[in-house]
Amino acid sequence: MSNPKMSETTSNLSTVNARISPRGGLDILSRDEIARLRDASAGGMHELLRRCALAVLTTGSDSDDPRAAQLRYPDFDIQVLQQDRGIKIVLHAAPASAFVDGDIIRGIAENLFAVVRDIAYNANEISSSGKFDLGTGAGITSAVFEMLRNARVMRSYQDPNLVVCWGGHSIGRDEYDYTKKVGYELGLRGLDICTGCGPGAMKGPMKGATIAHAKQRQGRARYIGITEPGIIAAESPNPIVNHLVIMPDIEKRLEAFVRLGHGIIVFPGGVGTAEEILYLLGLLLHPDNADLPFPLVLTGPKQSAAYFEQIDQFLRLSLGEAATSRYRIIVDDAAEVARAMRQGIKQVREDRLSGQDAFFFNWSLKLSDEFQRPFLPTHAAMSGLNLRRDQPVHLLAADLRRAFSGIVAGNVKEEGMREIERHGPFEIHGDPEIMKALDALLRAFVDQRRMKIAGEYRPCYRVLA
Amino acid sequence: MSNPKMSETTSNLSTVNARISPRGGLDILSRDEIARLRDASAGGMHELLRRCALAVLTTGSDSDDPRAAQLRYPDFDIQVLQQDRGIKIVLHAAPASAFVDGDIIRGIAENLFAVVRDIAYNANEISSSGKFDLGTGAGITSAVFEMLRNARVMRSYQDPNLVVCWGGHSIGRDEYDYTKKVGYELGLRGLDICTGCGPGAMKGPMKGATIAHAKQRQGRARYIGITEPGIIAAESPNPIVNHLVIMPDIEKRLEAFVRLGHGIIVFPGGVGTAEEILYLLGLLLHPDNADLPFPLVLTGPKQSAAYFEQIDQFLRLSLGEAATSRYRIIVDDAAEVARAMRQGIKQVREDRLSGQDAFFFNWSLKLSDEFQRPFLPTHAAMSGLNLRRDQPVHLLAADLRRAFSGIVAGNVKEEGMREIERHGPFEIHGDPEIMKALDALLRAFVDQRRMKIAGEYRPCYRVLA
Amino acid sequence: MSNPKMSETTSNLSTVNARISPRGGLDILSRDEIARLRDASAGGMHELLRRCALAVLTTGSDSDDPRAAQLRYPDFDIQVLQQDRGIKIVLHAAPASAFVDGDIIRGIAENLFAVVRDIAYNANEISSSGKFDLGTGAGITSAVFEMLRNARVMRSYQDPNLVVCWGGHSIGRDEYDYTKKVGYELGLRGLDICTGCGPGAMKGPMKGATIAHAKQRQGRARYIGITEPGIIAAESPNPIVNHLVIMPDIEKRLEAFVRLGHGIIVFPGGVGTAEEILYLLGLLLHPDNADLPFPLVLTGPKQSAAYFEQIDQFLRLSLGEAATSRYRIIVDDAAEVARAMRQGIKQVREDRLSGQDAFFFNWSLKLSDEFQRPFLPTHAAMSGLNLRRDQPVHLLAADLRRAFSGIVAGNVKEEGMREIERHGPFEIHGDPEIMKALDALLRAFVDQRRMKIAGEYRPCYRVLA
Amino acid sequence: MSNPKMSETTSNLSTVNARISPRGGLDILSRDEIARLRDASAGGMHELLRRCALAVLTTGSDSDDPRAAQLRYPDFDIQVLQQDRGIKIVLHAAPASAFVDGDIIRGIAENLFAVVRDIAYNANEISSSGKFDLGTGAGITSAVFEMLRNARVMRSYQDPNLVVCWGGHSIGRDEYDYTKKVGYELGLRGLDICTGCGPGAMKGPMKGATIAHAKQRQGRARYIGITEPGIIAAESPNPIVNHLVIMPDIEKRLEAFVRLGHGIIVFPGGVGTAEEILYLLGLLLHPDNADLPFPLVLTGPKQSAAYFEQIDQFLRLSLGEAATSRYRIIVDDAAEVARAMRQGIKQVREDRLSGQDAFFFNWSLKLSDEFQRPFLPTHAAMSGLNLRRDQPVHLLAADLRRAFSGIVAGNVKEEGMREIERHGPFEIHGDPEIMKALDALLRAFVDQRRMKIAGEYRPCYRVLA
Repeated sequence: MSNPKMSETTSNLSTVNARISPRGGLDILSRDEIARLRDASAGGMHELLRRCALAVLTTGSDSDDPRAAQLRYPDFDIQVLQQDRGIKIVLHAAPASAFVDGDIIRGIAENLFAVVRDIAYNANEISSSGKFDLGTGAGITSAVFEMLRNARVMRSYQDPNLVVCWGGHSIGRDEYDYTKKVGYELGLRGLDICTGCGPGAMKGPMKGATIAHAKQRQGRARYIGITEPGIIAAESPNPIVNHLVIMPDIEKRLEAFVRLGHGIIVFPGGVGTAEEILYLLGLLLHPDNADLPFPLVLTGPKQSAAYFEQIDQFLRLSLGEAATSRYRIIVDDAAEVARAMRQGIKQVREDRLSGQDAFFFNWSLKLSDEFQRPFLPTHAAMSGLNLRRDQPVHLLAADLRRAFSGIVAGNVKEEGMREIERHGPFEIHGDPEIMKALDALLRAFVDQRRMKIAGEYRPCYRVLA
Repeated sequence: MSNPKMSETTSNLSTVNARISPRGGLDILSRDEIARLRDASAGGMHELLRRCALAVLTTGSDSDDPRAAQLRYPDFDIQVLQQDRGIKIVLHAAPASAFVDGDIIRGIAENLFAVVRDIAYNANEISSSGKFDLGTGAGITSAVFEMLRNARVMRSYQDPNLVVCWGGHSIGRDEYDYTKKVGYELGLRGLDICTGCGPGAMKGPMKGATIAHAKQRQGRARYIGITEPGIIAAESPNPIVNHLVIMPDIEKRLEAFVRLGHGIIVFPGGVGTAEEILYLLGLLLHPDNADLPFPLVLTGPKQSAAYFEQIDQFLRLSLGEAATSRYRIIVDDAAEVARAMRQGIKQVREDRLSGQDAFFFNWSLKLSDEFQRPFLPTHAAMSGLNLRRDQPVHLLAADLRRAFSGIVAGNVKEEGMREIERHGPFEIHGDPEIMKALDALLRAFVDQRRMKIAGEYRPCYRVLA
Repeated sequence: MSNPKMSETTSNLSTVNARISPRGGLDILSRDEIARLRDASAGGMHELLRRCALAVLTTGSDSDDPRAAQLRYPDFDIQVLQQDRGIKIVLHAAPASAFVDGDIIRGIAENLFAVVRDIAYNANEISSSGKFDLGTGAGITSAVFEMLRNARVMRSYQDPNLVVCWGGHSIGRDEYDYTKKVGYELGLRGLDICTGCGPGAMKGPMKGATIAHAKQRQGRARYIGITEPGIIAAESPNPIVNHLVIMPDIEKRLEAFVRLGHGIIVFPGGVGTAEEILYLLGLLLHPDNADLPFPLVLTGPKQSAAYFEQIDQFLRLSLGEAATSRYRIIVDDAAEVARAMRQGIKQVREDRLSGQDAFFFNWSLKLSDEFQRPFLPTHAAMSGLNLRRDQPVHLLAADLRRAFSGIVAGNVKEEGMREIERHGPFEIHGDPEIMKALDALLRAFVDQRRMKIAGEYRPCYRVLA
Repeated sequence: MSNPKMSETTSNLSTVNARISPRGGLDILSRDEIARLRDASAGGMHELLRRCALAVLTTGSDSDDPRAAQLRYPDFDIQVLQQDRGIKIVLHAAPASAFVDGDIIRGIAENLFAVVRDIAYNANEISSSGKFDLGTGAGITSAVFEMLRNARVMRSYQDPNLVVCWGGHSIGRDEYDYTKKVGYELGLRGLDICTGCGPGAMKGPMKGATIAHAKQRQGRARYIGITEPGIIAAESPNPIVNHLVIMPDIEKRLEAFVRLGHGIIVFPGGVGTAEEILYLLGLLLHPDNADLPFPLVLTGPKQSAAYFEQIDQFLRLSLGEAATSRYRIIVDDAAEVARAMRQGIKQVREDRLSGQDAFFFNWSLKLSDEFQRPFLPTHAAMSGLNLRRDQPVHLLAADLRRAFSGIVAGNVKEEGMREIERHGPFEIHGDPEIMKALDALLRAFVDQRRMKIAGEYRPCYRVLA
């Protein structure tokens, strides 16, 4: 699979040069496609490709600073080589940790090719082909479907069994161990796992499920990781992920989660997790989705009980009591979480059957524009958010989601961080009561060190009543 | 796989109504695709779909009159049903012979879905998507590649082992038995089979190879059938074919054969076979292909010795002695044919390796425009052919090929037959010597009853010196 | 799989020297077993092994003279080579027809190892281990079970689908073609085939089923051949057989058929076929088996209608009208035969389920001693048979079976032929009416040339009233 | 796979009643075998079966008191039910922890059937069949081979890749985490794991390897657990074990390890681990094994450095400096351990190839009688051990091994514990220097709490100079 040569000049920095042949997916290509891949990797997308590839190769690193890997492997480079027989990936000065005695770890190699596949597919087929009208919701949904199909994560013969796990990448040991336990209980019940594919709550469930699947002799389990270029560097995919998909932006990534998954579990996390909860509630509270079964469980160990109480209070206060009917909070009972998922997914299955809906893609879920249109968290956009109760609850949820999204960007995404460095913190305002609750919630995150792994946290936002 | 209900009104005519679910390939579809398939099957392509589907369902019939099946099953209809979960094919008054005690034969069901797949793919992705510039050779080659990839006939991991078998659909018992023997010897040597997928020389090699593959315990053998809408009704695909591809026209079909196959065997046949030989020699005599290894064997049982002598003489006379270096005639020695193929394909393999060319598609083979542009055999086009020696030999071969192509159309293709009925036989002219040889060859075909299965043969052409 | 060296001295006789490694079954052996195999192949069993191996290697030969192969390949020898890693088979001066360009046909190699496996297993585990009390019916049944399990022909997860096909190895072209058609119709219905594994009626159904299984995309079909050392030389196993079993004698072979198969089809044949019919009726007419479902169909093409009429008459006359309830005669309707089998096997399945009986072995079938004890057809034994009606019908059937068995031995088994050469024809007597009917039946077989493939037939028996 | 009914009377004790069908191995049984299994489970072996089954079902328990499980599940019972179709296991009042929402965990069910399989096989085929002369070394080796083959742990096509991991079941957290790391590094290098299949050092490597195999996409990895009835209750097999084998006694278990494994890693442990080290050195120091490659690594985290120093000193002192050439101590470098194994196994592979020895069973390893004969640690036997240097070093190693074996029995095996309760501690004597070193080593084990998980340790031995 790889013909590594230890780089002479850099071997003391523990890097490796290697050539890697593709496995699956990228093996039968036309001459044009090969040329486009090479051009993509050489042209405008080269920097993007380099960054994502390095993220895959530095899996296991414990930093969430997207620029750290770049600093440590400044000479790293990736090239896609053209051959009529197909392509090869050429790595220069790649992190040695991705290799075992000179051979690349197979899961990492597969994920590397997934990066090439998705970046090229997005560039050639989604953004510029004119095939999809990305100005409409239907067009965006089609694009999401095509990216997922191209990544071969959907299985026509598979009964609904995919649980999406959300939660922080930077969580405490107790919380991490608990995510493993939940993954283990899910795996014992034959459920597959889909996460954002970074560390923390995105890795624990997969590890737990791997052990459970081994005990249940389940050979073809899926560990799906869905990420995006903006976040992959901060949240390196771990190589248990056997289906990696890189969606072009956070909105399409979130849509991929909700259309692909049959149920969702939210573990403790920071602002990103809050964003995900609000996104999901915004969808589920849309009148069109009122009858759609969609199991949603918020869970954590005993130590996180307070965290979920705060979230719960914030949701009740901002979205109203009705919102609480769409989720269930379970504290410190991994088996019960798994049972609730299994039960909920059974209802999803029946609903799909009765509606002749596909098992592999949730076409019936209504996503209104607010949730599909990419949100660019500029200072103007952030201060323009409508965080008032004088609107339908799902629209309020949508703007709350955007507020959290902006804060995530300001915390860990390169561009957002640069904006904050340049113009100071975002300003957000709305109903005083909501603003107060929001401020309290965010402060609690800071206190619980849920904002950032390393260093003192400097808020990237200011709440104005 | 099917939920058949015996049609009440038509059961005495031995027809069946059934609903069939897809297997492989058409199982993960977007809503748009499903809608397009349904529309395609309901709209302009419905008649085409109906005709091809009926051909697949009447496999084993011994008629080569494309209109016979239509007459026997006048009520037959096919519909593609839309469901979010995917599609279903609904058959009305379908030939009972395709069913076993009410269940459709699985190979036939697969081929039925191949028909739907290719007709829709051609309509949506090839002809009208603007993705391919079908005015250029490169565009056509890309389209051919895409159709083959979409049909999943290429395997990235497979060593070169695909032998294309050409020859008549209407051949004698001795000749048919011999094609089985050759298929058997090919199968014993691990070679896969690709044919035009009708009866006669297109079926025999597959049957022989099936037995040999069973003896060699070769589980994943490919029996590829490549056909086209204009011919499928006359040459029903037999269900041993486990990869059926419907190319849009004869030129793309021929290109598919030569780019996919690693060697070609030509059995006795009629004009269609002569067309194929001239097509192939036209390619191989192109200066750019001079060094390209491409094993080509003309073979038949003792009884066909004379046939190949006539062909050989015609080729020597029209294309010159040099042409004979690109083919070998083997009479009545099936094992030697198989050995020659195995040996020749070994050279193909080495050539591909040294040129880093793909095993699964022969990108290096040069096809000039004459061989790619669809040829419409109108009376004008036929009489405009240049069948004179005052031109490069590969161009003469190209026009000779077209002459034979027109005669095939006049013999067995619906449109061609209508043209002849309306305007009388085609007129073809050229160098007197070539014309004389051509006339002799065609007369010999008539005498040997190689033109048509049933009835007295009325020539559809007139040779003018 | 094989490292052949063309034998220098014998290559002009088309023989090959080769070394072959085992596949499946004989791959994990203890040192003792390897030594026993080597000893077996070198010691007393060497001649037996040589003879059976040669039979496997001369598959496709059209002679049924067991001594012909020996004469044509006088230098042929086989040795089992000991290595700690396992065994190798060394072939000397083996028929070149078993090889393709120097490589042994894989199906033949597998059957060769089956020969070694069964001869050694019988010698070491059945005959001499003391593990089985072969003096009792239960002991014999256990031995039969163990031989079949050791040969891995039983599948625990398989629904009942095994049809045993009996019939002559020397049959006419029409009859042979019909057996192929029946095999084809069985294969279309997902049924597997088990035969005596020689040519004629034992090969046709397998060939037909192979094509049907290919059309139905049935990948794991079983073609089981059950033979015995005494007959294998006359009825070479064809390599479509993917499970070859060599039972020690005809009684255990017959028991293997009836315990393994879920239904039985009898095609036209000679005395051997009559023996099989009487054997089976003898079983089914036993009072203990009265309620056991066991589909039995006698069938042939139009041309064989007379044959089955004669059999039918003989059965009615000798065993009484009641016997006819256990079989059905179907003339010239292959599809109906297959439907009858499918329907009958459905009842077998329900019966096994309700009785908690295994699908893979018919433990419930009662075999009385007469059918299990090996019958040695000496002149004394033959003249001692009780062919009178003053006894239970299943006992009369048993002795009629033996009478036919003796005639088969006198016709084609080496030892029987020697006996006849030495002491003249066997004498058999009984009720005049039965004797007359028997004589007429046997004469009809002679007239229809069902006794022997080549030469004038000299009866090996004399019927005395 | 299971039809559980919650037991009414015991459900508050968290037990389950269930019926379980076998998977693999026990699916094609003769009537006799089924009857023998039922009899075995009902007769003299019932108590043994009950005890071992309970151990499998209480996996994950953290007690090493063999009597604890019995006390907690006093009503537990197991029955083998006879059906012609095969057997079923009926569980009464079984620990609920082995079930997930009423379904037994598949790995546990498989291991349960392994228990039935091995106990019955040992009773019927090994001990009482007369097939093996257990009085000779060759007979014992044959029996070991047969038990392993019957358990299907050997693969003919597999390259040498099996690493045996030994070490304590009761180890500290640091040591446990380290065994996981080593397993992970072994798994990354494609190596399979074999252990004694209890907790601690027997579980860690399997868990680590499971994650690594997932990352390397290695689907068919083996996790082999080899145990014995005397120890299984104290060291419950964990269900990652996908091949469980129960050998009849510790000597055959040890022989299974050394003949099956291609290399051995020893983690920190207590007396049992010391026994294993001495056993192995006793073998490797036998003159006949001088040239046999057999990689042996002693390893642990930094915290265990002292432990291995003590072992090393004891070995040098008792067996001499030469002994040290057969092992390597690596401290706190999991990757280096894995590299050493991979390298060593490469030499094993070459040695087997050059000697035409099997990959799957180490026939060449010489085991002298001392290591094969079961040692019954009575007080007489223990005081009769020759622990003096005036004998060949491998014999001294043999008796030292027995001394440790006796102490293990006195610590955790039911019978040994009873002996000690009745007659007081064992007395062992020998060369004063060795005795002193032995005493020091054992005391160190006590101090490091390596003797027993719970409670104060009361020595079961007395060292006399």
